[in-house]
Amino acid sequence: MNTSFDRGQLDGMDKSRRTNLINSLSGYKSANLLGSVNAMQQTNLALMSSVFHVGANPPLMGCLLRPHTVPRHSLENIVEMKCFTLNSVTKSIYKRAHQTSARYSRDQSEFEAVGLTPEYSNTLCAPYVSQSPVQIGLSLVDTQVLTVNETVLVIGEIKEIRLADNMMSSDGHLKLNEAELVTLSGLDEYHLPESLGRLPYPKP
Amino acid sequence: MNTSFDRGQLDGMDKSRRTNLINSLSGYKSANLLGSVNAMQQTNLALMSSVFHVGANPPLMGCLLRPHTVPRHSLENIVEMKCFTLNSVTKSIYKRAHQTSARYSRDQSEFEAVGLTPEYSNTLCAPYVSQSPVQIGLSLVDTQVLTVNETVLVIGEIKEIRLADNMMSSDGHLKLNEAELVTLSGLDEYHLPESLGRLPYPKP
Repeated sequence: MNTSFDRGQLDGMDKSRRTNLINSLSGYKSANLLGSVNAMQQTNLALMSSVFHVGANPPLMGCLLRPHTVPRHSLENIVEMKCFTLNSVTKSIYKRAHQTSARYSRDQSEFEAVGLTPEYSNTLCAPYVSQSPVQIGLSLVDTQVLTVNETVLVIGEIKEIRLADNMMSSDGHLKLNEAELVTLSGLDEYHLPESLGRLPYPKP
Repeated sequence: MNTSFDRGQLDGMDKSRRTNLINSLSGYKSANLLGSVNAMQQTNLALMSSVFHVGANPPLMGCLLRPHTVPRHSLENIVEMKCFTLNSVTKSIYKRAHQTSARYSRDQSEFEAVGLTPEYSNTLCAPYVSQSPVQIGLSLVDTQVLTVNETVLVIGEIKEIRLADNMMSSDGHLKLNEAELVTLSGLDEYHLPESLGRLPYPKP
């Protein structure tokens, strides 16, 4: 390989350069908006790049939250109300989604600040993002603090899934391209993927 | 929204349809090949779609492994040797990367079976994938079993980063498009992203 960094070189890097590099390493990341609310009905919306599938039966999803950064309001709300939503980010709303990461004060809802619309179902206390074609309603199952750096792993059980029309293939697979979902790399680059097709189940 | 599923409808779904749906929900996922080796020098390579950034200082990455599915050889190797690599998947190798998920026997290396080349550095015991433009060498820091479903969260500390030429911007951000990294959705659909550009740091 042509460029390499050992640990000493990484530790010696300028902080913001190292942050950009380390955040780029995993590759393309999902972009989801986490919707939550507190007991006073104040809503909160935060962009997440570390949402992942944990299991299909029961249907579980996980998300990593840094307690000392902006999403702390989300974490407080989730722990208080035991529910939250995850909402897909599309080409039409990715600039507004990115803007939710600004440090708004506790009493200002990111929904209003960036121009996204909260929407409620009868099943869940937390708000969905009306503009998102994939909306997932979850109840809190577990929070685990990662001892290595105090990051909090939040695990939710899916209570409800709401989809825009024509997104689901007959076998359950979702057509993310048709709904123009975007993907994120590093801290701030957004991309629109083009499908290379589906591959068959691999056998030796 | 136009299509919605409550929990009862999800639980009543055909198993493979539910698996496809739940695996599609988080959006686009990173695709990485996890390289490992055991004390007998048998190498292993497994496709991972749940690699994520855990922290920048110290530089940490995490990955979810299902103990009862194919990647169990990876997990055994990581626990035994305390090291592993993560390697990016590009347009030229995504079919071979997908094929590593086939159920090969313990004594057959996926490197050979699918036609990818192991490559070693002086720093790490585990093999890199020579064809990958982003190669990350990690040492095991922690494994945590998620009580909800026995999934294992593996956390590694970055010891070394090896990059193809011209991938890194002056501020540390990696140009994933130029290296033709792919992203994965659901269980089997691969995509090539096109950049919409980088956005400025958000302020209220």
